[in-house]
Amino acid sequence: MTDIEPTAAHDLVLANRILAREDVLDAFGHVSLRDPADPGRFLIARSLSPAQVTAADLQVLDLDGRRLAGDERASYAEVAIHAAVYRRRPDVRAVCHSHAAPIIPFSVTRTPLRPITHVAAVVGGDVPTWDSADLGPDLLVRTAPQGDALARTLGTGAAALMRGHGCVVVAADVRALTLIAIRLVANAEQLSASLQLGKVRYLSAEEIARSSAAILAPLSLDRAWGYWVSRVEG
Amino acid sequence: MTDIEPTAAHDLVLANRILAREDVLDAFGHVSLRDPADPGRFLIARSLSPAQVTAADLQVLDLDGRRLAGDERASYAEVAIHAAVYRRRPDVRAVCHSHAAPIIPFSVTRTPLRPITHVAAVVGGDVPTWDSADLGPDLLVRTAPQGDALARTLGTGAAALMRGHGCVVVAADVRALTLIAIRLVANAEQLSASLQLGKVRYLSAEEIARSSAAILAPLSLDRAWGYWVSRVEG
Amino acid sequence: MTDIEPTAAHDLVLANRILAREDVLDAFGHVSLRDPADPGRFLIARSLSPAQVTAADLQVLDLDGRRLAGDERASYAEVAIHAAVYRRRPDVRAVCHSHAAPIIPFSVTRTPLRPITHVAAVVGGDVPTWDSADLGPDLLVRTAPQGDALARTLGTGAAALMRGHGCVVVAADVRALTLIAIRLVANAEQLSASLQLGKVRYLSAEEIARSSAAILAPLSLDRAWGYWVSRVEG
Amino acid sequence: MTDIEPTAAHDLVLANRILAREDVLDAFGHVSLRDPADPGRFLIARSLSPAQVTAADLQVLDLDGRRLAGDERASYAEVAIHAAVYRRRPDVRAVCHSHAAPIIPFSVTRTPLRPITHVAAVVGGDVPTWDSADLGPDLLVRTAPQGDALARTLGTGAAALMRGHGCVVVAADVRALTLIAIRLVANAEQLSASLQLGKVRYLSAEEIARSSAAILAPLSLDRAWGYWVSRVEG
Repeated sequence: MTDIEPTAAHDLVLANRILAREDVLDAFGHVSLRDPADPGRFLIARSLSPAQVTAADLQVLDLDGRRLAGDERASYAEVAIHAAVYRRRPDVRAVCHSHAAPIIPFSVTRTPLRPITHVAAVVGGDVPTWDSADLGPDLLVRTAPQGDALARTLGTGAAALMRGHGCVVVAADVRALTLIAIRLVANAEQLSASLQLGKVRYLSAEEIARSSAAILAPLSLDRAWGYWVSRVEG
Repeated sequence: MTDIEPTAAHDLVLANRILAREDVLDAFGHVSLRDPADPGRFLIARSLSPAQVTAADLQVLDLDGRRLAGDERASYAEVAIHAAVYRRRPDVRAVCHSHAAPIIPFSVTRTPLRPITHVAAVVGGDVPTWDSADLGPDLLVRTAPQGDALARTLGTGAAALMRGHGCVVVAADVRALTLIAIRLVANAEQLSASLQLGKVRYLSAEEIARSSAAILAPLSLDRAWGYWVSRVEG
Repeated sequence: MTDIEPTAAHDLVLANRILAREDVLDAFGHVSLRDPADPGRFLIARSLSPAQVTAADLQVLDLDGRRLAGDERASYAEVAIHAAVYRRRPDVRAVCHSHAAPIIPFSVTRTPLRPITHVAAVVGGDVPTWDSADLGPDLLVRTAPQGDALARTLGTGAAALMRGHGCVVVAADVRALTLIAIRLVANAEQLSASLQLGKVRYLSAEEIARSSAAILAPLSLDRAWGYWVSRVEG
Repeated sequence: MTDIEPTAAHDLVLANRILAREDVLDAFGHVSLRDPADPGRFLIARSLSPAQVTAADLQVLDLDGRRLAGDERASYAEVAIHAAVYRRRPDVRAVCHSHAAPIIPFSVTRTPLRPITHVAAVVGGDVPTWDSADLGPDLLVRTAPQGDALARTLGTGAAALMRGHGCVVVAADVRALTLIAIRLVANAEQLSASLQLGKVRYLSAEEIARSSAAILAPLSLDRAWGYWVSRVEG
């Protein structure tokens, strides 16, 4: 049976709408959810801008990115990003790929992207940058080897930049994913501004660990999710 | 009797809505009012994003941050900020804690945040920065000692930055608080831009004192409040 | 007879709304029109944020800033700016005073504000900066001597900055005023960005003269006014 | 017969609305389409801000910029831009002229505007800058010689900057034009930000060629167009 579990579908549609509303995704970019009914599959919209996604647009793909069920129209060109992360990271249940403007400068220069505020601690320490140069001269991630290389750069982290392209963000659930994706962009913007003023004090490793746990606790995560839902529904 | 005075409740809800609308608060941050009926208590929403706050969400807390009345759901994790300021500063009747992006660079570098325009004079002179490093590795203000340390850094001023976190703004009433919180953010943004152009001329101490008095006079304060109310209600 | 001519009232209300909508004015700032029925008087709203101004809020002031007719509530604190310009500049029939953020950096540093695009040529050459320091430690323009000093700095130009405060913009009619006020802000923002990239080529004096004439010609001025009206009415 | 083909008219109106909605065009700027029924003519709105254009405002011009049919009101002052490009570039079927703020810094400094992301590859390599200085001291393009000079600078490319003025963008169809015009602006903004952080890695020539082909393929182009249409219609 290939029907998509309604709660998962609803959450995924909301994540699409929220990430578009909060300027993480625009015409491009996508977000997926590991199928709660089968960890060997994931849910993602057909090739469609996130702001326009409805439950009827969702597809079920296997971990090689092949469509098993759902909308029969074309998939995104880069489902290999999601498939590779789900293969390599059993702890990950939600993935976002974005091109948000504030992260691009960190993907094309040697300036590291690191958290400077407690709410951005959720992105982890230094965010690594993956360079597709040897694998894909169109910079897209279309194949399993490309996806695997990106997933290796991601390692055990929450986010990786993609040189001249964007980033991938991962999390244990869709609410955490939404928070991390939004905070990665905000931190990039604030760090860029801070670097213009002088030497920057980053969070320490301990501050990252403790603040991240506090921000991802239900009290703050539920508050943020409720806020973002109110903005797409309001 | 624990009922909240309706005018105070209405003002506090408006301040929440205004500060969200004007991009001072987002998913996080909070604003409170000393209870006009009892200076040993203050009013603040339950843990909820400011844009969503209604009168039904308000709580009455004592100056140790314990809930005395109102909505029974969880309080914000950082009510200790408000409680400590109300304990230490009898002149303060309204407090805001925010994470607004333009102030962050001044909290993670050594560049001082000082007013450069007459409308920003209300933030006072150099805005001090408090560093939670020794007291709270998650950077949150959860305890009375943390709150007291922050309140000591605030001193007799209108605002203090919190390293890698945000700021606290205080005032004698909710309208002045709203103005100061909005102008602190605007001044941070304008000062960052000015510093890119060359040596900056700041307001003198006398200009700060005189401009601040002029901006906080009823003619301008009422005009600004009326404008902001029209934007949340319009 | 002190009734305000309806077309003038309508234009002035629109200019208030447009300049608020286009982020030139916010809670503060004001715009006025010389009375078409009597060059010794001018029309301006009572102390009210420009976004909220209606025809019922207008006042008629003489060139000393005294109220002759119209709404009886308090006038803006700085009507002396308008009065002084109308006294000194018979060619001027519309005046705007704003605090728009992008112009502030040019008012607190020594970097000159000069036009870099043909649509900004309307602001003229170097925009002078007036410093109130010796005349008003609250930085406001409340008296005739303060207004006269500002008007002398303005000279025969279209705009002058006010140190740590904002600017004054003047024009021969309300449509040109609106265009110049909007373009001054846009040019400040674009020039700030350009200065980060390297040495900037400014418009030549001849380019300023010719482009300004082209942009203020009816074909472009009517198009721009129609566009801005559609945005406040849409 | 001078009736405008309805699909072309509809597409052109949408392109006007989209480019206004996405902040490429404001009060000024214009977009045109080569007439699908006659390559010796092009369709463009009468002098009107793009956000306000409807099918009834369209005109049919010949390749000298003379009106052959459609709305009888004044044409834009700079139809010579479009005419010259259509004369010189038979491959071009859509042209946009804009003044978008983020591109201006690259037009008044020596910093080259080159793509740094795969979605911006569609602008091609270095975007040349045309300087009208010897031909038009009002910086406008009003004559055939001015238009020809600009078209020569454009060469076989997709975009050229105009010093102190704006840019011209061209494409083989209206959807590609819309995408390129939007991405040119986004790339300018992201490149400006990147240059503040350090040495920038640009796309290689091969990456530009391959990424451009991928982004202009129907899967991504249709998705982007559908998204932008939903934003002007939503």
